[in-house]
Amino acid sequence: MWAPEAELTVVPIGDFTTEAGATIPDAFIAYQRWGTGDEIVLVEHALTGDSNVADWWGEALGPGKALDPERYTVVCTNVIGGCKGSVGPASPAPDASPYGSRFPAISIRDQVHAEKQFLDALGVDKVHAIIGGSMGGARTLEWCLLYPEFLDAACVIAVSARASAWQIGIQSAQISAIERDPAWHGGDYYTTGQSPKQGLAAARRIAHLTYRGELEVDERFGTSAQPGENPLGAYRSSDQRFAVDSYLDHQGDKLVQRFDAGSYVTLTDSLNRHDVGRGRGGLNKALASIAVPTMIVGVDTDILYPYHQQEHLSRNVGNLLGIAKITSPCGHDAFLTETRQMDRIIRSFLAMAASPGGAEYSI
Amino acid sequence: MWAPEAELTVVPIGDFTTEAGATIPDAFIAYQRWGTGDEIVLVEHALTGDSNVADWWGEALGPGKALDPERYTVVCTNVIGGCKGSVGPASPAPDASPYGSRFPAISIRDQVHAEKQFLDALGVDKVHAIIGGSMGGARTLEWCLLYPEFLDAACVIAVSARASAWQIGIQSAQISAIERDPAWHGGDYYTTGQSPKQGLAAARRIAHLTYRGELEVDERFGTSAQPGENPLGAYRSSDQRFAVDSYLDHQGDKLVQRFDAGSYVTLTDSLNRHDVGRGRGGLNKALASIAVPTMIVGVDTDILYPYHQQEHLSRNVGNLLGIAKITSPCGHDAFLTETRQMDRIIRSFLAMAASPGGAEYSI
Repeated sequence: MWAPEAELTVVPIGDFTTEAGATIPDAFIAYQRWGTGDEIVLVEHALTGDSNVADWWGEALGPGKALDPERYTVVCTNVIGGCKGSVGPASPAPDASPYGSRFPAISIRDQVHAEKQFLDALGVDKVHAIIGGSMGGARTLEWCLLYPEFLDAACVIAVSARASAWQIGIQSAQISAIERDPAWHGGDYYTTGQSPKQGLAAARRIAHLTYRGELEVDERFGTSAQPGENPLGAYRSSDQRFAVDSYLDHQGDKLVQRFDAGSYVTLTDSLNRHDVGRGRGGLNKALASIAVPTMIVGVDTDILYPYHQQEHLSRNVGNLLGIAKITSPCGHDAFLTETRQMDRIIRSFLAMAASPGGAEYSI
Repeated sequence: MWAPEAELTVVPIGDFTTEAGATIPDAFIAYQRWGTGDEIVLVEHALTGDSNVADWWGEALGPGKALDPERYTVVCTNVIGGCKGSVGPASPAPDASPYGSRFPAISIRDQVHAEKQFLDALGVDKVHAIIGGSMGGARTLEWCLLYPEFLDAACVIAVSARASAWQIGIQSAQISAIERDPAWHGGDYYTTGQSPKQGLAAARRIAHLTYRGELEVDERFGTSAQPGENPLGAYRSSDQRFAVDSYLDHQGDKLVQRFDAGSYVTLTDSLNRHDVGRGRGGLNKALASIAVPTMIVGVDTDILYPYHQQEHLSRNVGNLLGIAKITSPCGHDAFLTETRQMDRIIRSFLAMAASPGGAEYSI
């Protein structure tokens, strides 16, 4: 049933209907799989991540590592609405032309339902654990609410129970930066020969500042000029930059090379829609109903998902395995960069998940 | 010598040469003045503020208030590069056409030098105290270093010793939002019949999120929809908004009505250039050399100028009067919104400034 080891493989999941009532006919989900262990661990990627866990969490995946393919079957799908093999705005619609603006809005719940249809298509009826950070953490949380019988344990990293107004504000600013790019064409740029590169790069520059720690960025760049440029000249010029601006430009350019603006808008909108309380009697009632043993992880310097949001989760989830705090100057991205701490946390989580009688504790 | 009470008045200050070596011929500074007290208190406005202290700090200015016009002569200038009466990018150059891109870059030190030329033009040779927050705090700090003999005491609010890399990054994102507006025309839009309203509004939306507290914004708006709009529809649409997005749009629209995009870019660039250490042997050496009795004020929830930056200032300024922390959910803007706390802080500062032998203490 499984695709070849580590090989990106696309699985048709049939028609898919969103939470808000739109239908994507003949939807498909791309995924990768490592190992053949008895227990399945489903890993959930973040906004601009993809199914290639070996790429973005390589320190966690491999023989002898926390996600050991000799012990587990590690599975990661590309999220619906993404651009790395799953159906998204750049995919052809039934009329063979790219969806563009015709691609429906996708909620975090839709992302989970699509992943469930994917697992159904493969004949998987149970996974041992689901682990995810940021948007992947939001999916993990929704898994606990939508399909609690389907998993033994969940590890929810660097996310909140719902989007905060501040997050919505800064995320909408990114969407708006893309929409204001004349090459966006209302989302229907795929056949124009243009793409909203400047808008996407601008969005990423803003986003990146929310992903990193203020002190870490300052320690690296301070007020230094980019070598060969003079940001203190007699006339301001956007090609005479501080080092931090060059760094952010580079982050923007890198994303433009590897990511589709339409997917970026769709998935950023998904984050705006994140709210486990919707239709469930409110946030804390929803969290209290979670019976899946759940581990909560946060980062002390995260400004996008501040640690008090993970404290809120840990106070309210119905079945708390434990809470762990990553200590790092790196902010939100620490769940990707602090590999030693994440290793210890994932191992502890999987150990706790394996002994369901274990008492809850903090790492 | 003074202009009529509270009346916006423009004072020619002669040719002005910037730190980076450009010259603005026949420069001029607009100001307002309240009261006729023996001692002059110079108030310094923030980025999009202006000389009208009664407008943005009305709770602090007036008979019986902290800045009592019966006791003090309260003076506030519009910063050079601004758009409320002082020479700026929208002003006519010697050829009678607006400066636009020909307006030179302005550093915080330039802002202070221009203000000093203004006071020289009026024949003022001493002020009792200088008080300012945010960009006004940066000016106040530079006053202590550039003209220490000119003032008895300084109150520096919600600012840092230099721009941090994070601040530069988020500020440059705002400049870039304006530059990417096709109506910007490289800064020379004044004669085109257009103005980069969308870019300026986008910049303000980003900025506003750095001015407010994350918890306060969330308490006000959470994930609520703007009444009459549905941000959870089957297809994303930028006119179907969350309440916080409508609020930020409103903040952007308000600024567009009252502020010039060219001035916004010039003054945001000034903030990027803020660094009291430049040419003075570094940050802490510069701060240690400050002999002016200086009070430092910060806000506990400020994400733009985090409180550790004011702690840094207070540890290093050569002559510390005291440090005060404003406790507020409102973030950076608390120095404008927490009027009761600011009242107490300004009164304490002026009391300490009046008795130079007073020991330093924290409020």
